[in-house]
Amino acid sequence: MSFFEYSRAVAFCDTDAMAVVHHANYLRYFEEARVAWMRDRDLSDTHFPKADSALAVVSSRIFHYKPIAFDDIAIIRLQVKRERLRIYFRYAMHSDKTDDMIASGETVHVAVNKELRPVRLTEKFTQTLEKEPWIETWPWNS
Amino acid sequence: MSFFEYSRAVAFCDTDAMAVVHHANYLRYFEEARVAWMRDRDLSDTHFPKADSALAVVSSRIFHYKPIAFDDIAIIRLQVKRERLRIYFRYAMHSDKTDDMIASGETVHVAVNKELRPVRLTEKFTQTLEKEPWIETWPWNS
Amino acid sequence: MSFFEYSRAVAFCDTDAMAVVHHANYLRYFEEARVAWMRDRDLSDTHFPKADSALAVVSSRIFHYKPIAFDDIAIIRLQVKRERLRIYFRYAMHSDKTDDMIASGETVHVAVNKELRPVRLTEKFTQTLEKEPWIETWPWNS
Amino acid sequence: MSFFEYSRAVAFCDTDAMAVVHHANYLRYFEEARVAWMRDRDLSDTHFPKADSALAVVSSRIFHYKPIAFDDIAIIRLQVKRERLRIYFRYAMHSDKTDDMIASGETVHVAVNKELRPVRLTEKFTQTLEKEPWIETWPWNS
Repeated sequence: MSFFEYSRAVAFCDTDAMAVVHHANYLRYFEEARVAWMRDRDLSDTHFPKADSALAVVSSRIFHYKPIAFDDIAIIRLQVKRERLRIYFRYAMHSDKTDDMIASGETVHVAVNKELRPVRLTEKFTQTLEKEPWIETWPWNS
Repeated sequence: MSFFEYSRAVAFCDTDAMAVVHHANYLRYFEEARVAWMRDRDLSDTHFPKADSALAVVSSRIFHYKPIAFDDIAIIRLQVKRERLRIYFRYAMHSDKTDDMIASGETVHVAVNKELRPVRLTEKFTQTLEKEPWIETWPWNS
Repeated sequence: MSFFEYSRAVAFCDTDAMAVVHHANYLRYFEEARVAWMRDRDLSDTHFPKADSALAVVSSRIFHYKPIAFDDIAIIRLQVKRERLRIYFRYAMHSDKTDDMIASGETVHVAVNKELRPVRLTEKFTQTLEKEPWIETWPWNS
Repeated sequence: MSFFEYSRAVAFCDTDAMAVVHHANYLRYFEEARVAWMRDRDLSDTHFPKADSALAVVSSRIFHYKPIAFDDIAIIRLQVKRERLRIYFRYAMHSDKTDDMIASGETVHVAVNKELRPVRLTEKFTQTLEKEPWIETWPWNS
């Protein structure tokens, strides 16, 4: 089974005084991976600003195993599934410098309109989600 | 029982195109509350940069109930406890504009040195933690 | 003459791998000072989200003299003046740890509505600006 | 003459409540372009963390002409020159959605070591800079 993968160089401004990526920035990297997945699946026209719908975050969690530093490439794999109104993304982050897992995490979403009220997912979005692979044995830990 | 409380005005740069605080910034607000607690408890001299020790984040989670916007004041209450090597902070965020809970969350930490290797907590830090109140019925939800 | 002053503790997440505040965050600190000035002058009701008007940034510059680190307090003084459609803010940042100037800077603004089209400043805003002190010998350097 | 060019999708977390990229984030995008240039010129081994040298920012300025939004691609061209101890980078940002210039800017740097003391540029860095194109008619405005 193959999962969507997104890569980006660690930015210098994303590091902190411990010389590694600050923990709050993992949620920003996860978001970039999520948006890249949506573009890859041709779903941008179902999302803000092209449509009056965005995936609001209702909860998130991150597990950190190893630090990642400037000069590393962050490689993020993700899987996504829908359960009724909720969309679950799970992430696994590696670095190009080591085989160890850097971090894993989950964000849970509901579709909302510009007034932040829940809205129905488009048919196109729902159908795309049905075709996505999902494993319960997602590597939460290395 | 009274918990430590930290307040800060929502910064304009912390909002996103949905006109509310972006979810990654909650971890930054929680960190500010944590650091303010450390200063209030006179623990700054046991932490980077005054000591070779910092509280690395090993996991975090956030639950979002309501949005918070520019022009609101974020009010964050926290509790903290130690279990062997791990330190647990739990947060509850309110706004000055409503009684509803905005978000709650948890960050789990271990003390590390500049090389990010685990180190022993100072006696002073440990003793302070023993005096902190902790309730299992922390308001995870409003 | 006395200028408006705003203070805030340096946040850990605002530092970078050189262990000092990352240069992009100075614009965020300047913005916080600007917003605090607006609140102090009771101008919040003339600005987004209470009014359909915001001060868009048309240019900015920063001069860095010394670094500032976690555990420092950033103290920002500012002056502001209007020239026709443009509003000029000048900033001088100090730390509580030293008498040296950390940085100075300028942001230039025009009032815009939600569609980012230029709008007239309210009478109240204009009158407030007329009472603000301004010196050409603003300390650009220590 | 051809200048180095760097592209990146606008991240959702980089927008603010006006639904456009927040002005402080331009310095982060400029930095990404600068680092990409250094990698392209094979200079990473002369810079932190591979060498004890980083390009500290001594001043910066940005001119904003148009907003840029989520769903746009930011395209940044840059030129760089050395004048004695100082290195000057100039940037011009476009969007994939329009021919208009979004912003231009400049950052001025000196090489420093981990203690933030000025250090000599490596021979390799200096020689690379000598081969870079530079035009005084850099498009500061559209």
